[in-house]
Amino acid sequence: MKNLQKLLNADKITIARTITAVENGTDTKILEEIFSHTGTAYYIGITGPPGSGKSTLVNAIVKKLLKDDRKIGIIAVDPTSPFSGGALLGDRIRMTDLALHENVFIRSMASRGSLGGLAKKTKDVALVLDAAGMDFILIETVGVGQVELDIAQVCDTTIVTLVPESGDSIQAMKAGLLEVADVVVINKSDREGSDILMIELKFAFELREQKVGWHYPILKTIATEHTGVKELVSTIKSHKKYLEKDGRIDIERKEKMALILNELIEEKIKSHLKKYVINEDRLEELVNKAYLRKINPYNIADKITKKALEEKKSYE
Amino acid sequence: MKNLQKLLNADKITIARTITAVENGTDTKILEEIFSHTGTAYYIGITGPPGSGKSTLVNAIVKKLLKDDRKIGIIAVDPTSPFSGGALLGDRIRMTDLALHENVFIRSMASRGSLGGLAKKTKDVALVLDAAGMDFILIETVGVGQVELDIAQVCDTTIVTLVPESGDSIQAMKAGLLEVADVVVINKSDREGSDILMIELKFAFELREQKVGWHYPILKTIATEHTGVKELVSTIKSHKKYLEKDGRIDIERKEKMALILNELIEEKIKSHLKKYVINEDRLEELVNKAYLRKINPYNIADKITKKALEEKKSYE
Repeated sequence: MKNLQKLLNADKITIARTITAVENGTDTKILEEIFSHTGTAYYIGITGPPGSGKSTLVNAIVKKLLKDDRKIGIIAVDPTSPFSGGALLGDRIRMTDLALHENVFIRSMASRGSLGGLAKKTKDVALVLDAAGMDFILIETVGVGQVELDIAQVCDTTIVTLVPESGDSIQAMKAGLLEVADVVVINKSDREGSDILMIELKFAFELREQKVGWHYPILKTIATEHTGVKELVSTIKSHKKYLEKDGRIDIERKEKMALILNELIEEKIKSHLKKYVINEDRLEELVNKAYLRKINPYNIADKITKKALEEKKSYE
Repeated sequence: MKNLQKLLNADKITIARTITAVENGTDTKILEEIFSHTGTAYYIGITGPPGSGKSTLVNAIVKKLLKDDRKIGIIAVDPTSPFSGGALLGDRIRMTDLALHENVFIRSMASRGSLGGLAKKTKDVALVLDAAGMDFILIETVGVGQVELDIAQVCDTTIVTLVPESGDSIQAMKAGLLEVADVVVINKSDREGSDILMIELKFAFELREQKVGWHYPILKTIATEHTGVKELVSTIKSHKKYLEKDGRIDIERKEKMALILNELIEEKIKSHLKKYVINEDRLEELVNKAYLRKINPYNIADKITKKALEEKKSYE
C-alpha cells in the first residue's frame, strides 16, 4: 500500500482511508501488508444491553488512559452508540472533544443491515488501528448475539456492562454474555436493585468455572458522574498484568489467532464457491426442485461440495 | 429412520426423540428422510428485546389458533422464555396447560454457550415439526443478533415485540430488528410512552422500503390481559393471505431455500476441512508462526484453501 509509513506513524487521515479500504474490501492486500506491524495493541471489549451506558463508560475510561499519554483507538459497533451517531431520539453525549484529541482515533462500524461479516470487519479495522500504533483499542458492541461473542474472542479484556432494575441484566446474563466477561460493571448503580444485581452476579460467577488466578471482579459505577471509573481502569490494568504474567496472554492470543486463521480459510472457500462452483442459474434450478420437494437439499449440498473440491483447476 | 410413520402422525414421543437426534447430530440421515414431508407448516417468528412479553404473546396467540383445531409447534430459542425454563428469578408463567394440550408440541433450544450453529439447529428442529404435520410453527427468539435474523429468514410472518418506556425499543429497532418485521407489536401498551413509540415506529416504517401490497401493521397489545391478541391473530392471518395471493409465498420460500442450500454447502466444506485438510498439529505450528509475525495468516489461508481444493481424493 501507499502511505504505509504514514499509517505506522498514526496519521489520522491515512488511518481513516485505510479503514475505509479494508471495510469496502477494495484492497485485499492491505491486511497482508500491515499484519507484521500488528500485535502490540491491547484490546478491550465493552459489551452489554442497549442503554447500559457503554459509551459513557468508554468515554470515561479513555479520558483516564489518556493521562498516561497512551494512543487509543475506539471502534463503536453499537448502532446506538453516540460514537456511531447517537440514539435516534435520546440524549446525545458530546464526543467531539474526544474525537479531536490527537491521541484518539474513533471509528464507528455501519451495522445496520449488514450483520453478516460485521465481526470479521471489526477485527480487520482493529488490525489497522493496531498497526497504527494504538496502545489500547476499545471496541464497543451491543446485544447478546454472535457478533458480540465473536468480537469478545479477540479482546484481551472484555467488560460486560449491566444496569440494575429491569430483568434485562439477568436475561442478558443467561444469554451468554457473562461467559465472555473478564470484568462485570454494574453501571447506573445508584438505581434501585443494584445490590440485588450484585448478589445475583456473584452467585452466577460462583457457578462459572474460575480461571486460575483471576477472580472475576464485579464493579459498581455511575459513568455519568465518573464514579467508580478509576477503580474500573485499575481493574483493567490488573487484568492486563494478570494476562502478561507467566505468558497467559501469549496462550490466549494464539487461541485467537487460530480462530482467525480458520475464519480466513472458510471465507476463501466461500468466495471460491461463489465464483466458480455454484453458478446462479444452476442454483436457481436446484432451489426450484428442492422447493417442490423433487430433490433433497441435503443430498444436493453433498454433490455440489464434491464438485467444488474436485475442480482444482478453477481455484486461483 | 425407524418410526417415520409415527413422526408423520405427530406422535409426541417420536417428535421429541427425533428432535433430540437432530440436535445432537447423531443421525444425519433424518433430515434427508423427512424433507419430502415438509413444506406444509406456516412459520411464525416472534422476536424482540428481553422482557417485551414474547412468551405471553405466544401463549395467547396459540390459544386463539387452537380454537381453529390446528396443530401447533412452539420452539423457544429465547433462553429467558418460560418455555425454556423461565426467567432465573422472575415470575414464571405457567405453560403446563399448553404443553399438555394434544395439539401442541413445545421445544426449547439450549442456547447457553452454544450460539454457533444455533440458528441452523433451530431450522432443523422446525423441519421436524413441519414433517410432523404442524399447521403453525411459532419460533420465539430474543435479542438483536445474527441468530434472530437468521431465524427470521425462514419465517413466513415475523412479529417484532417492543415495549414503551426505556430506550431499548428504539435501540433494538436501530439494530436491525425492524428490518425483519412483518408485524410490529407494542406490548404492555398500557405503560407510559406507548403513543410516542407508535409515532416513532410509524416514522421508522415510512423510511423503510414498502413491500407492494403490505402496509406494515403496528399493533398495541397487553398480552397478560389478552388485550389486542384477537387483532394480532387476525393480522397474522391477513399476512398469510397476502403471501398466498399471487404466489408471493412461493417466491419468498424459494429465496429461503436458496439460503438453506448455501448454508448446507458451506457446512459440508467446513467439516471436510476439519477432517482432512487442517491437521491439528500443522495448524498449531502455523498459528505459532503467525503469532510471532513470522508468517502471514492471509497468505497461509490461501495456501491451505488451495490444498483443500486440490486433494480431491480425500473427499467422501
